[in-house]
Amino acid sequence: MDFRPVFLIIGILLAALAASMSIPAFVDAFAGYADWQVFAASAGVTLFVGVAMMLTCRAGGARLSVRQTFVMTTFGWLLLTFFAALPFSFSGLELSFTDAFFEAMSGITTTGSTVISGLDAAPPGILLWRALLQWLGGIGVIVMAISIMPMLRVGGMQLFRMEQSKTAEKTMPRAAKVAGAVGLVYIALSLAWATAYWLAGMSGFEAFAHAMTTISTGGFSTSDASLGHFQSAAIDVIATIGMVVGALPFILYLKTVQGDFRMLFRDGQVQWFISIVFFLVVVTAGWLWLADGMSPTGALRHASFSIVSIITGTGYANTNYGLWGGLTVPVFFFVMFIGGCAGSTTCGIKVFRFQVLYAAARSQIHQLLQPHGVFIPYYNRRPIPDDVIVSVLSFFFVFGISFAALAMGLGILGLDFLTAISSAATAIANVGPALGPITGPAGNFATMPDAAKWLLSAGMLLGRLELFTVLVLFNPAFWRG
Amino acid sequence: MDFRPVFLIIGILLAALAASMSIPAFVDAFAGYADWQVFAASAGVTLFVGVAMMLTCRAGGARLSVRQTFVMTTFGWLLLTFFAALPFSFSGLELSFTDAFFEAMSGITTTGSTVISGLDAAPPGILLWRALLQWLGGIGVIVMAISIMPMLRVGGMQLFRMEQSKTAEKTMPRAAKVAGAVGLVYIALSLAWATAYWLAGMSGFEAFAHAMTTISTGGFSTSDASLGHFQSAAIDVIATIGMVVGALPFILYLKTVQGDFRMLFRDGQVQWFISIVFFLVVVTAGWLWLADGMSPTGALRHASFSIVSIITGTGYANTNYGLWGGLTVPVFFFVMFIGGCAGSTTCGIKVFRFQVLYAAARSQIHQLLQPHGVFIPYYNRRPIPDDVIVSVLSFFFVFGISFAALAMGLGILGLDFLTAISSAATAIANVGPALGPITGPAGNFATMPDAAKWLLSAGMLLGRLELFTVLVLFNPAFWRG
Repeated sequence: MDFRPVFLIIGILLAALAASMSIPAFVDAFAGYADWQVFAASAGVTLFVGVAMMLTCRAGGARLSVRQTFVMTTFGWLLLTFFAALPFSFSGLELSFTDAFFEAMSGITTTGSTVISGLDAAPPGILLWRALLQWLGGIGVIVMAISIMPMLRVGGMQLFRMEQSKTAEKTMPRAAKVAGAVGLVYIALSLAWATAYWLAGMSGFEAFAHAMTTISTGGFSTSDASLGHFQSAAIDVIATIGMVVGALPFILYLKTVQGDFRMLFRDGQVQWFISIVFFLVVVTAGWLWLADGMSPTGALRHASFSIVSIITGTGYANTNYGLWGGLTVPVFFFVMFIGGCAGSTTCGIKVFRFQVLYAAARSQIHQLLQPHGVFIPYYNRRPIPDDVIVSVLSFFFVFGISFAALAMGLGILGLDFLTAISSAATAIANVGPALGPITGPAGNFATMPDAAKWLLSAGMLLGRLELFTVLVLFNPAFWRG
Repeated sequence: MDFRPVFLIIGILLAALAASMSIPAFVDAFAGYADWQVFAASAGVTLFVGVAMMLTCRAGGARLSVRQTFVMTTFGWLLLTFFAALPFSFSGLELSFTDAFFEAMSGITTTGSTVISGLDAAPPGILLWRALLQWLGGIGVIVMAISIMPMLRVGGMQLFRMEQSKTAEKTMPRAAKVAGAVGLVYIALSLAWATAYWLAGMSGFEAFAHAMTTISTGGFSTSDASLGHFQSAAIDVIATIGMVVGALPFILYLKTVQGDFRMLFRDGQVQWFISIVFFLVVVTAGWLWLADGMSPTGALRHASFSIVSIITGTGYANTNYGLWGGLTVPVFFFVMFIGGCAGSTTCGIKVFRFQVLYAAARSQIHQLLQPHGVFIPYYNRRPIPDDVIVSVLSFFFVFGISFAALAMGLGILGLDFLTAISSAATAIANVGPALGPITGPAGNFATMPDAAKWLLSAGMLLGRLELFTVLVLFNPAFWRG
């Protein structure tokens, strides 16, 4: 395999990462924090490696085969995470490299689990870097969902091929154009939410940082108490709507911008997602009101905020929902797995896969009743090809196995059941906080053993890259060609 | 739909149930316990209803359509459970009808969860009735797997059709003949294990009762302490081997009896099952030895006994493995779902489904690498038809959804996370004990709220009948025809 085109693209991405490191460098320098040197040094190292890769590999050209794309995707995310960890590692926070790598992986995969406490007193550069990583990871995932994933056909993503043409030569220019337009939408939405947060009472810095981690459904905050720090119903509502916006397919916003508002609400995946959220919010709010003694409006506010935060994999907390107990623990646990829509910034299993599975199970039941009938499962009014069904169902299976392996791994490392099982779920579904007193919304991941942090980092990457993109590299047949 | 053939068969089954109630009646009468009247009265009621159903419905004939078979299966198990609960309800144990129904469902589905404490002092009739229910449930499931399930094509069971002919007229007589032969093997194995238990030091009564719940992988015991009551390594080893025997496809024993020993070990499902058990025992024993400080032989004995007891869904305990903590909690939790082989007395997802899923996921990965190649998944050296893959994968999905719904239902009823999630798993996979202090191996289900017992009973039935057999009845299209 020719690795030059792979390294050329990774080199370009590293150079871009170095450029984005200059933003927190300027902010820290401007605000008078010595940490600007950390970012400047990290940017220098990253830029040097990136440019070196570009120069040595430029002869290979930038056209990738399917196999090269798989290698580029996994190694690209890994290398970007490694260099993104440098500022955490060099900073005054005195994080071990394990912690720095965990934090960077949690950022770039838009997970939002953290090992840092004392955020409220941290220098603005570090806070901005965390937000920026999630924001870059978010747009990275959307672009991948548009350009790369349908071509790689992982986990049923081939449903979202934009054209019937199967050759990369024809689809890539169009995908690049669409990705550019989606990028503008992403920037516009981020600016809109920053303004809204600022009007609702956040400082300008807080508003920017939270807007970036809201639209990217990342969930890093500038305070240990997450959004609970602000104790503001207006901010909670803005965040709730923003997380929902981040969880819908961004490509549909292009249609909306072009004036066709119906497309967004005629999309089966959006309808299902909104219905699922609505149902879960009603059930949870009802329980908080009737069994937990909250006021009806308080129950609605907290239920909608928490359900949306968990189902979208954002991971904000406006209160320690770990204390609610009862119904909420198993509900929140299972909700972690659902995720948002394909083509959004969310992770998890994603709604379209449940739709495909439901359609397949439904036609399966009809087939049981009428063995000689022909029943075709549909997605968005189109028949689902057999290979997509098998692909989606394999995803479900591999997701289950990976989750179980991760949870058992954490069990071996001595974590209790609730912590092990919910931390595995929160990592692979890129949610952020887990459940229970240690890694729940009021805790963080700092006290976990190092081995657990590496396992969880691997889980985050696996979940973010739709499992198969990574696992395919472990197949010997892949390397034999 | 003509219900007469359905009720005719259920009537015959009820008459058979009434006949088997006479066994504990005789035992109690012989041993001088007044409880014999309870069994005699229950047998009378059951016989009356059964004969009445037979007489009123005999005009319909005994040939069933696919839809009638679905109705017969679910309603048959429900009605049998209802009447099997009568002796528990009328007995001196003073169980509510909820408790009696739960115990009967747990028995007949070979689950082994119990609401009764004080087993050691209970009259022999009740103990025998519990063992008998599991023994009857066990052979019932094997016969269903041979005769009905392949025809109903639920969850991939069509893989186990004995002949290519798809018409019930041709396969049923052969299935009946095979079922008869398998029944003889079942009786022979039960007698062999009763003898072995007796030689190892159990009383004759204990030996019979435990042999019945070992080969049926049911797990009811004559003591609150389960097999831990005997504190005997020999008994533990006999039970471990017996549970493995109960977890293999019984139809392969016919080949063994006919002199072809290789068939049993050449079967892919058996090889996978033995390998999985071996791997899990080694890991668990290693952990008990190195991290928990057990002696190597003690670790091996306890690990093999517990892993086999849980993976086969038997649910015996030879010690309170709930106290081991650490690795064992998540491992035991996930092991519950695996189950044994199709065509055995075990429940759970079953090994062949993992094989089909693995084969599908594997060919999926090859397809990713070579989009134009053709990769066919195999099971036991035969290509797996597409409809079987979708059927198996739908099973996996519906299993996950049912488990999550059940766990959330238990959460709503106020159970803690570990109890809710592990009780849901133990019910739907027909294991027996759950995890945690309340419903774990040292506890029982008596203190659960009534609503939870009904939910769990529904879960046991759902799991036992391979989900789709029950769920298909909730589809309006089923009743429209």
